[in-house]
Amino acid sequence: MRKLLNFENNIPTFLSSASAVGKEEHLGPLGNKFDIYDGSDLYGMNTFEKAEAEMNRTALNLALKKAGLQPSQIDILLAGDLDNQCTATSSGLYSFGIPYIGLYSACSTCTEALLLLSLLISKTNTACGAVVTSSHNSAAERQFRTPVEYGGQRTPTAQWTATASGAFIMNTGGKVGITEGMFGKIVDGTVSDASNMGAAMARSAFDTLYTYFKISGHAPSDFDFIVTGDLGHIGSEILCEMLAKEVSGAEKIHTDCGKLIYDKSKKDVHGGGSGCGCSASVLASHFLPMLERGEIKDILFLSTGALMSPGSVLQGENILGITPLIHIKGLE
Amino acid sequence: MRKLLNFENNIPTFLSSASAVGKEEHLGPLGNKFDIYDGSDLYGMNTFEKAEAEMNRTALNLALKKAGLQPSQIDILLAGDLDNQCTATSSGLYSFGIPYIGLYSACSTCTEALLLLSLLISKTNTACGAVVTSSHNSAAERQFRTPVEYGGQRTPTAQWTATASGAFIMNTGGKVGITEGMFGKIVDGTVSDASNMGAAMARSAFDTLYTYFKISGHAPSDFDFIVTGDLGHIGSEILCEMLAKEVSGAEKIHTDCGKLIYDKSKKDVHGGGSGCGCSASVLASHFLPMLERGEIKDILFLSTGALMSPGSVLQGENILGITPLIHIKGLE
Repeated sequence: MRKLLNFENNIPTFLSSASAVGKEEHLGPLGNKFDIYDGSDLYGMNTFEKAEAEMNRTALNLALKKAGLQPSQIDILLAGDLDNQCTATSSGLYSFGIPYIGLYSACSTCTEALLLLSLLISKTNTACGAVVTSSHNSAAERQFRTPVEYGGQRTPTAQWTATASGAFIMNTGGKVGITEGMFGKIVDGTVSDASNMGAAMARSAFDTLYTYFKISGHAPSDFDFIVTGDLGHIGSEILCEMLAKEVSGAEKIHTDCGKLIYDKSKKDVHGGGSGCGCSASVLASHFLPMLERGEIKDILFLSTGALMSPGSVLQGENILGITPLIHIKGLE
Repeated sequence: MRKLLNFENNIPTFLSSASAVGKEEHLGPLGNKFDIYDGSDLYGMNTFEKAEAEMNRTALNLALKKAGLQPSQIDILLAGDLDNQCTATSSGLYSFGIPYIGLYSACSTCTEALLLLSLLISKTNTACGAVVTSSHNSAAERQFRTPVEYGGQRTPTAQWTATASGAFIMNTGGKVGITEGMFGKIVDGTVSDASNMGAAMARSAFDTLYTYFKISGHAPSDFDFIVTGDLGHIGSEILCEMLAKEVSGAEKIHTDCGKLIYDKSKKDVHGGGSGCGCSASVLASHFLPMLERGEIKDILFLSTGALMSPGSVLQGENILGITPLIHIKGLE
């Protein structure tokens, strides 16, 4: 039986958040909300992988600056990305010298990390911690599919891995906090097409939401938004169909970071955005500021992950989905 | 400043542990202690990656059987491996249906996972959890270096990735527990040779041990053993030189799972064993049984991780090391 983790006794709150993105994200509907962008997607580096590492460094530096803190004042860093062996995280962030918990949960890593950090802050002597997650379109394309220079035709269901990094600093006593959360269960997406990840992840997002409403005592009407990570257009449609049948009302307040980050009419993003940096940057620069300004009060935030590798897909394995959940609340 | 996490108020304890290994591990000095081995290294599957997944499934099944529990009685699973995007974990373990926290911390994942599970059990409503970590020699060789069929000559410093999986079930009230722990800090190994990982990880192991003895109030004489994960022969020598100078006495009780798992005189393992499954299987089948039988009372256990990928090495990045720590204690 899945368990809710409750932090009401000592609520972990956001001290600051920051985002660093690439060209397409800057040109999208949320473009002006992101803190920093580099139109070349390279952040001054000579490879896409090093660019992603530098984007992470930039985002964490900015979050620290906004919080008025030095790296030595951060007790713990939780982070991860999509690169093989998560090197954009380790090489980008090691120089801060912050004790580190390395995570891999594909594009769901942002929510997984915020939930674990909430646990550390709420229940242990951890006073202050950081979360950083990222993805880079060109690094992901050549790792998971084909190098962008190859010019391969993308299928209509394919999602566009966001070039983005989101960073968060949390402690206690702030205006917006995480009051509860729940880890995900790995659910067989029953899809083996790496260009149709939204469909593969929709079932796990439904599993988590259905379980949450069953055990939490909350109803969809308690929330302003249910925000999934990067189901994109196709996965969101599948999720909402399932929600309408089983958790009526939830589909009406559903939105998705992969749908919000790009303008579908202007850019051939097909299925919408994806990547560990997609939900992280949209939370950091869109939803958290709305909560801080009091425009919204309560959201459920669920980054969605597709657990697969090029090797596992070639060997005929289905794509597995995972969806952790956090309840983010305005506390004033 | 690094913080110790203390679990003395509600000590998480081991309910069971199990290991599944390959041919070379079975032929090694600890061969008869491992629960299950497959002399073909394939565990009935047709690829090494699927074999690793099946080995994970086997190890967790056996740990559950020893504990007398069904998967539905496990609240949370923390796991990871070395494969790109940790697919040996996700595809091997999803069918258990246990809520999942995906980790990536290279070969240090076992200690990282046990520390996080201790936190969940000690401080939250998590009653019972599982940890599984694995590696497979043939899957790792073709991913990180060259396929074994290629017959490449290994350098004298190269370590032998263990074909092994270790599984642990924890709750409270048992005989052997985790009383405290500390996460690692990413330390530049100042080495960029992927065939010399022990040397790259030694500095991070020293950093964690030095910090632990500085802040914990403990001295090396409080412990039977200081067990590192897989520094192997070369990394262990470097660590012990540093310890002898700075934490005198610690070097005398140091041992390393990568040194214990193979007989150097019989097998050309060169630098010794490595891989997420190395320290996990040696803890599960060698050190935990010694603690349970009361032959030893206190150990510090530190799996060591080399944070790098083939891509990061080709792009000229140094190998970064990380070493979390747990204090495992006989409670009777």
